[in-house]
Amino acid sequence: MLKKRIGIIGIGTVGKPFLVQLKKSLSYIKANLELDIKISKVCDINPEIKKLSGKLNIPFVSRAEDLISDPQIDIVIELIGGLHPAKEYVISALYQGKDVITANKALLANYGAEIFNLAYKLGRTVKFEAAVAGGVPLIKNVSEVLRFGKIRNVYGILNGTTNFILSQMSRYSKSFSEVLEEAKQKGFAEKDSSLDINGTDSLHKISILCFLCFGAFVKLKDVIVEGIDKITLADILYAQELGFSIKLLAIAKKDTSKIEVRVHPTLISQDHPLAKTGGVLNAIFINTDIAGNFLLSGLGAGGKSTSLSVLSDVLSICNQKNPWVLKGQKKRSFFRRKEDLSCRYYLRFQALDRPGVLAKISKILADLGISIASVTQKERGLPLSKSKFVPIVMLTHKAKESSIVKARQRIDKLSDLKPPIQIIRIESL
Amino acid sequence: MLKKRIGIIGIGTVGKPFLVQLKKSLSYIKANLELDIKISKVCDINPEIKKLSGKLNIPFVSRAEDLISDPQIDIVIELIGGLHPAKEYVISALYQGKDVITANKALLANYGAEIFNLAYKLGRTVKFEAAVAGGVPLIKNVSEVLRFGKIRNVYGILNGTTNFILSQMSRYSKSFSEVLEEAKQKGFAEKDSSLDINGTDSLHKISILCFLCFGAFVKLKDVIVEGIDKITLADILYAQELGFSIKLLAIAKKDTSKIEVRVHPTLISQDHPLAKTGGVLNAIFINTDIAGNFLLSGLGAGGKSTSLSVLSDVLSICNQKNPWVLKGQKKRSFFRRKEDLSCRYYLRFQALDRPGVLAKISKILADLGISIASVTQKERGLPLSKSKFVPIVMLTHKAKESSIVKARQRIDKLSDLKPPIQIIRIESL
Repeated sequence: MLKKRIGIIGIGTVGKPFLVQLKKSLSYIKANLELDIKISKVCDINPEIKKLSGKLNIPFVSRAEDLISDPQIDIVIELIGGLHPAKEYVISALYQGKDVITANKALLANYGAEIFNLAYKLGRTVKFEAAVAGGVPLIKNVSEVLRFGKIRNVYGILNGTTNFILSQMSRYSKSFSEVLEEAKQKGFAEKDSSLDINGTDSLHKISILCFLCFGAFVKLKDVIVEGIDKITLADILYAQELGFSIKLLAIAKKDTSKIEVRVHPTLISQDHPLAKTGGVLNAIFINTDIAGNFLLSGLGAGGKSTSLSVLSDVLSICNQKNPWVLKGQKKRSFFRRKEDLSCRYYLRFQALDRPGVLAKISKILADLGISIASVTQKERGLPLSKSKFVPIVMLTHKAKESSIVKARQRIDKLSDLKPPIQIIRIESL
Repeated sequence: MLKKRIGIIGIGTVGKPFLVQLKKSLSYIKANLELDIKISKVCDINPEIKKLSGKLNIPFVSRAEDLISDPQIDIVIELIGGLHPAKEYVISALYQGKDVITANKALLANYGAEIFNLAYKLGRTVKFEAAVAGGVPLIKNVSEVLRFGKIRNVYGILNGTTNFILSQMSRYSKSFSEVLEEAKQKGFAEKDSSLDINGTDSLHKISILCFLCFGAFVKLKDVIVEGIDKITLADILYAQELGFSIKLLAIAKKDTSKIEVRVHPTLISQDHPLAKTGGVLNAIFINTDIAGNFLLSGLGAGGKSTSLSVLSDVLSICNQKNPWVLKGQKKRSFFRRKEDLSCRYYLRFQALDRPGVLAKISKILADLGISIASVTQKERGLPLSKSKFVPIVMLTHKAKESSIVKARQRIDKLSDLKPPIQIIRIESL
């Protein structure tokens, strides 16, 4: 019977349910999978955990080094989060011949190339199912799709908090701040939810998916990242009237020449399955070259669901014949530069209700080669437009990002408008 | 390099995209997975397919027997649907030493025990990823969860057509018939969608999942199956006011003594992820003994997505070391009888607005031991209650199905009510 000894660093939100479940599953796994797993050590800086590990009859250490250097341990599971010392623990574990499981998205997004290259060099495996869309077996399923052919586009709703907020705004016609408060009360948003709201969390996850699908890590600071804090209820309602939903999408696309990575609120057709993915759900939609489209969604967070993903990594490592190879690419030149991006745009202006405003805006857009697909000007008497400004909503045809940036600068200077203009990208999936 | 020869029977909605994609993927699979797959024969009764197969350079036969008896073929893929002759083809293929892949849910729901027992006896594999929730890798992921422990409850939204209809009714306050018409126009419902609407399609799928999770096939005629055609917009709106969504759920539960299988419209909390699964999406929510909860959703239908599931079965069979054993249980006695079921209920009555009606209803319920959790009586002047009848909505505490049946009979006889009363089950997931 195959024996594997594991050590767990970090017994917190994910670590605690994982530890408890794994402990309970050991005899079932032994009986059904003929696999003898033993938890050799756990490590945490919180002395309370010592009591828990005592109750579970598992040796406790307070210094991670004492766990990593244990020659008995085959697999080190890093669940402390954060960049440091997580990175140092993972690197050290690999050097000492351990396979590694991590749920740490920030770590992989920042140091993935280095970590995967090292693992490749040393013939070790690094697994990370829980790092993206915690409870959804996303990594495993994307890897499966990759066995049939190449992936073209990846569109993900990868953050439950922001999806909850946008869904509630849309469903109950509430403002951003009102729903954010509600999300905090319900426990769907952290007290400090800025990394969710501003898109950083989604950025980390799409960067990992981009690596998995296209073999290259993007430089995080080169990516367009916009959060949802500037999305107003008015935008959601205007988008609805035009047949769109607004979702915070994390996008990675590859065409013949370049890879494109972005995170931003996006207008997508109301009929698309991603638009139907509401509440705290995460989802991913993938276009492949020959294997068709693929959508998967589920619970992105939650200690119990997420720890199932860590468990699944443990079994994968135990069952694999050869190390799972993911070599970190270093070449970054094939990522498309921000200014070379192009897509369709939703533009909303707050204009004074006097003649000529529309003409001025249209001229600026035309001068920059931006073609207008539709215009809606609302009457002032209507709800949502009680101010002295009337809203004008435009959808453009495909335009260059650099042209839109210029248009924004010029239009924001017009005295007939209340700046800033609202700009949201549109995707046809 | 491992060689596998496959034959495909039925080149239709799923078969055609599968054939085209597999053909295109062969060289990629060979290069990346060191697997030499060849499509030896295809079979269809439609002579048009002969042209297609000629173009793809694949031998065509019009008689399935000529494919099944080909000694070169290792894997027979049955994609014709229907019970007969699909069953005979599958049985015959197993006897001739082939592994089998099928997307045929009706076949497995009706003859699964026989088919899996035969495969077990002969040491062959039967795979069916595409039979449940076509494009979602449900079978694979449920099997994965089963590796960690036991499953307690399975709740599925397994039919895209009915989920689309209920979602649209809820979102746009439209009637059942109005949305059904829309669904047909959009291609989300077949011209004859009765097997979707009346729950039969969901029944077939949950019966397969029940077998996978609990090792036993239920007798289809012993299952409570109710469709969505009696769900009115009023029910959806009243349920919303009370914090519920109505979904067509397929349920399989196991407690210490019995397995329970049912398919019916169900009130579930609006906050539950299944309630957020809108449009044509399918979803499954699973409670396990030790591995926590698990939700997976995705596209249940669509030729391209579904054929990805068939492809994944092909690769599974090619990669497996030993046949995948699923022995069909024959013992049926441990399924709970319909009359022994109990759950919470939503009851809606149409009462004449005169004194004493509520008292009469309450007395009947009390006499049968049914305890009322909440009552809402609407005023006649409100929308949705323009008739001379006023709606009364009650939620009960847990009650026995047999008592509710009796209550219905007695209450329907009251002259102060317009029969029939509406009864919808409630589940706390």
